Amino acid sequence: MPEEWKTIFVTGGAGYIGSHCVVELLESGYEVVAIDNFTNSVTGKNGESAALKRVEQITGKKVTFYNCDLIDREKLEEIFNKHKIHCVIHFAAIKAVGESMQIPLHYYRNNIIGAINLLEVMKAAGCFQLVFSSSCTVYGEPAHLPIKENHPTGNITNVYGRTKYFIEEMLKDISRAEEKWNIIVLRYFNPVGAHISGLIGEDPTKPFTNLMPYIAQVAVGHKSELTIFGGDYPTKDGTGIRDYIHVMDLASGHVSALDALRKQHVRLKIYNLGTGKGVSVLELIKTFEKVTGTKVPYVIQDRRDGDIVSMYADTSLARKELGWQSKYDVNQMCKDFWRWQSTNPHGYRSSLQNGTTKK
Amino acid sequence: MPEEWKTIFVTGGAGYIGSHCVVELLESGYEVVAIDNFTNSVTGKNGESAALKRVEQITGKKVTFYNCDLIDREKLEEIFNKHKIHCVIHFAAIKAVGESMQIPLHYYRNNIIGAINLLEVMKAAGCFQLVFSSSCTVYGEPAHLPIKENHPTGNITNVYGRTKYFIEEMLKDISRAEEKWNIIVLRYFNPVGAHISGLIGEDPTKPFTNLMPYIAQVAVGHKSELTIFGGDYPTKDGTGIRDYIHVMDLASGHVSALDALRKQHVRLKIYNLGTGKGVSVLELIKTFEKVTGTKVPYVIQDRRDGDIVSMYADTSLARKELGWQSKYDVNQMCKDFWRWQSTNPHGYRSSLQNGTTKK
Repeated sequence: MPEEWKTIFVTGGAGYIGSHCVVELLESGYEVVAIDNFTNSVTGKNGESAALKRVEQITGKKVTFYNCDLIDREKLEEIFNKHKIHCVIHFAAIKAVGESMQIPLHYYRNNIIGAINLLEVMKAAGCFQLVFSSSCTVYGEPAHLPIKENHPTGNITNVYGRTKYFIEEMLKDISRAEEKWNIIVLRYFNPVGAHISGLIGEDPTKPFTNLMPYIAQVAVGHKSELTIFGGDYPTKDGTGIRDYIHVMDLASGHVSALDALRKQHVRLKIYNLGTGKGVSVLELIKTFEKVTGTKVPYVIQDRRDGDIVSMYADTSLARKELGWQSKYDVNQMCKDFWRWQSTNPHGYRSSLQNGTTKK
Repeated sequence: MPEEWKTIFVTGGAGYIGSHCVVELLESGYEVVAIDNFTNSVTGKNGESAALKRVEQITGKKVTFYNCDLIDREKLEEIFNKHKIHCVIHFAAIKAVGESMQIPLHYYRNNIIGAINLLEVMKAAGCFQLVFSSSCTVYGEPAHLPIKENHPTGNITNVYGRTKYFIEEMLKDISRAEEKWNIIVLRYFNPVGAHISGLIGEDPTKPFTNLMPYIAQVAVGHKSELTIFGGDYPTKDGTGIRDYIHVMDLASGHVSALDALRKQHVRLKIYNLGTGKGVSVLELIKTFEKVTGTKVPYVIQDRRDGDIVSMYADTSLARKELGWQSKYDVNQMCKDFWRWQSTNPHGYRSSLQNGTTKK
């Protein structure tokens, strides 16, 4: 790794996708300065990140970590003054779709002001290299499938997605205005799974409705059954279709994006990160049951307002331009998620409660 | 005016539209607490607003004024603690379209963070009544004419307009989330003209390309000729068409909006404020020359990228639901603007320079 590209600043580094990405960065030879405010992640006993401690255990490498909120611009500036940052990966965001509809101002403050602060501090520090975590939510209801990156954006059904869309638009504007910026926007489809070690994984700190953690909560016995919203959609088995992607594939997509930024001044490019395969809710449940040998009882209820029937990516652009494609299938996603969930039934708190790290 | 509706908080009160609206508010029996940060307006000798001093002269009433930036949330809170505010009219914004494309982050910081701070402080103070200054820019390139309020928004050609659109979307979200909010969004078409007294008017503090001030600058001899961008548009005379509205009509539209909010809990309503009449650039110039007896030499140059050919409002909704309609025609707009410009050739600075107020 060239010296002038060594240090990556990761916002939201203690979160689900952030922590998995940090593993991949460290293993690719990068050094990582990570921040998190622990909104979506668990603090260890000494104020450190429980997830990043596990990342250090996996990789045998150190992560420089700060408890910092992007709203605290001065602290952010201090960190940028202390380290020579070569590129930023901006994961940090509050992301609960349902909650975002209830407390929109809180979402706008955190996600939008956070992004503005970050961009200003980067500019002041002379750092113009950025990978931004966006989401397939920006597409709204698909006009065609699979979805290409040039599909219209903006007709979004929730506030969380709107914050991602607004930030994308701001990035386009700064990229048009100032040639120095070199930005890749990654639109994630549905990240699931966990690192193969079972040491890190998704550990929601808030009520959630994401399917895979929900399935796992039922399988592990914390919930009695799974609720499926809508069994009469015009799909192969009547349930909604999504493009689930293994979180380690997502992580490797970020390393590919860094490679692209390092090699070329792209100004601003947008890529879907998905597998390109649509998987139904029932298919995911069946695969999970088969792979893990568990039973996942479910009930089918009415459709929810605003839910999208079917959504999966056209991934050809990332394959062509980033040389990236997903490697893991749904079996692997379920197996890895289950390894994490079954050995850490209470997430990172499992080990914090009795003072030792379960392995 | 009922006591619980008496005090209106006006952001950007020293600006062009703000100051004219304050006249109308005072004359309708409201009390006004105004703030401004003097980005778009002129400071008097003692840090007061030159425009609002004139407003006091016109109305014989006092305006409570604070030099306050919406980015300074603490100061904003102090003002809300000091006064019992019943409703807010939010004009404050940076608004130079060209500049917004060059320094987008600055526009996002000011306009978006300013709005978030204001909404949070209002909520904390228990004030949920709001009139928001939006713009016909949110419609982008018109799909049909005249433009109704339900025309799609979001496909916007400049950063300034995008900040207005983002704030509109935030307002829709908070209104959906919290029933207490009572919001009217007013989408202005092209405000021109000045108060009939000639004491207040538009006094741009930055390079501008707005047509009417430009015409007047030529007429008053500060510029040698007017540049018209595009003379080969598919319009009656080849020049672009806009819906010019007298700023005092705009001001009375705000009083009508306050009436509507006072009478009914509308949650969120959006109204166009325009005359409904499309006027070409050449028509405006000819009218100006005729009404003022001046000559306005012009040259026609190539079209500018992103300029919209033709844009005028369907104003029937405001007429029906607010009982408001415009009263002044283009003759009056030119006459009043010229009265202001010719007696104040350097805007408010005209009187500040020699220490007296010209009348």
